[in-house]
Amino acid sequence: MKIYSCKIEKSLGAGIDMEDITSELQANILRSGVQHGLLTANVIGSTGSLTTIEYEPGVIQDLKDAIQRIAPEGIPYKHELAWHDGNGHSHVQAALLGPSIAISVCNGKMALGRWQQIVVINHDNRARTRKIAVTIIGE
Amino acid sequence: MKIYSCKIEKSLGAGIDMEDITSELQANILRSGVQHGLLTANVIGSTGSLTTIEYEPGVIQDLKDAIQRIAPEGIPYKHELAWHDGNGHSHVQAALLGPSIAISVCNGKMALGRWQQIVVINHDNRARTRKIAVTIIGE
Amino acid sequence: MKIYSCKIEKSLGAGIDMEDITSELQANILRSGVQHGLLTANVIGSTGSLTTIEYEPGVIQDLKDAIQRIAPEGIPYKHELAWHDGNGHSHVQAALLGPSIAISVCNGKMALGRWQQIVVINHDNRARTRKIAVTIIGE
Repeated sequence: MKIYSCKIEKSLGAGIDMEDITSELQANILRSGVQHGLLTANVIGSTGSLTTIEYEPGVIQDLKDAIQRIAPEGIPYKHELAWHDGNGHSHVQAALLGPSIAISVCNGKMALGRWQQIVVINHDNRARTRKIAVTIIGE
Repeated sequence: MKIYSCKIEKSLGAGIDMEDITSELQANILRSGVQHGLLTANVIGSTGSLTTIEYEPGVIQDLKDAIQRIAPEGIPYKHELAWHDGNGHSHVQAALLGPSIAISVCNGKMALGRWQQIVVINHDNRARTRKIAVTIIGE
Repeated sequence: MKIYSCKIEKSLGAGIDMEDITSELQANILRSGVQHGLLTANVIGSTGSLTTIEYEPGVIQDLKDAIQRIAPEGIPYKHELAWHDGNGHSHVQAALLGPSIAISVCNGKMALGRWQQIVVINHDNRARTRKIAVTIIGE
């Protein structure tokens, strides 16, 4: 059994912004030499999140709209009382989406659908280079 | 340390539909021979999701109602501009719920509550056989 | 490769209540001796959840408010028809947030941001001692 760790980075605009990291994760599986096992990834930082989606401009906008409905930018947040940095919505959005995913690796590839991509989301109200910690375990 | 991989399938109706997969996951832990370790599972496809819930008809309907409130079927989605298949809400719902879970295995059993079941959810607007990739690692 | 399992407990008030478990998880990584690998954790029970957030009183209240907007306590739930225990919203909230996280371990520490803590949330409408199953795998 092998274990392989890496970090990947993605420069994202002010939130909500997101980018497809599937091919970078896949490249690391190749480097790890793991054929059968598990990939986990978690975003480092409390205003980012990870999920999967069909990476298509329309549905990306639809997801952004839905996240804004759940935790809108324009309403009062008590987080302001501590930091006055205007990103209370960013923290709440990220906590609701969740920081991590776990995807099986089969025959050297992640077990994903043809139209299913892994995305990192920046919810912060300023541009951020988001770091993602990746662990690949298997044989 | 052992590693065991499998895929399970569940035929589900047009979304939102869900089914309990706890006993099938548990049967695969038995096959794996793992007594202490970790089970991860991820749905394959961008209009499905996984979570845990008390698998009881009332609360299943309550969860469906909540998901419909978060990303309703009847509002405009930009995903329509690309594909015209009427399932923009399905993609958004699945991305918000998330594709994967990770559950500890203790004494050959998943560490779940008595009333806590693992469910696969089909959010797509047509019946789908949902595939779930499962990895079990441990001793 | 090592594997280490443990359970941690946290007494929480009636929902929505949450507490930071980062330092207890970190103490178990130290006990495990794992320097590079993976920590997973899942809440045991269908009315609890796990996520990450900046553990600061303002944003904690903001997250509680957002969860209440998504699945409010005061609306009718069909779960009542089965159990009459008034916690339909608790089950729905927990299923939406999700039961588990997976965080990489690098140099003996979880790969988290400086302001990113792991929290266990009790959504139940009564005080609960929430149990969390933890697995640490690595070298």
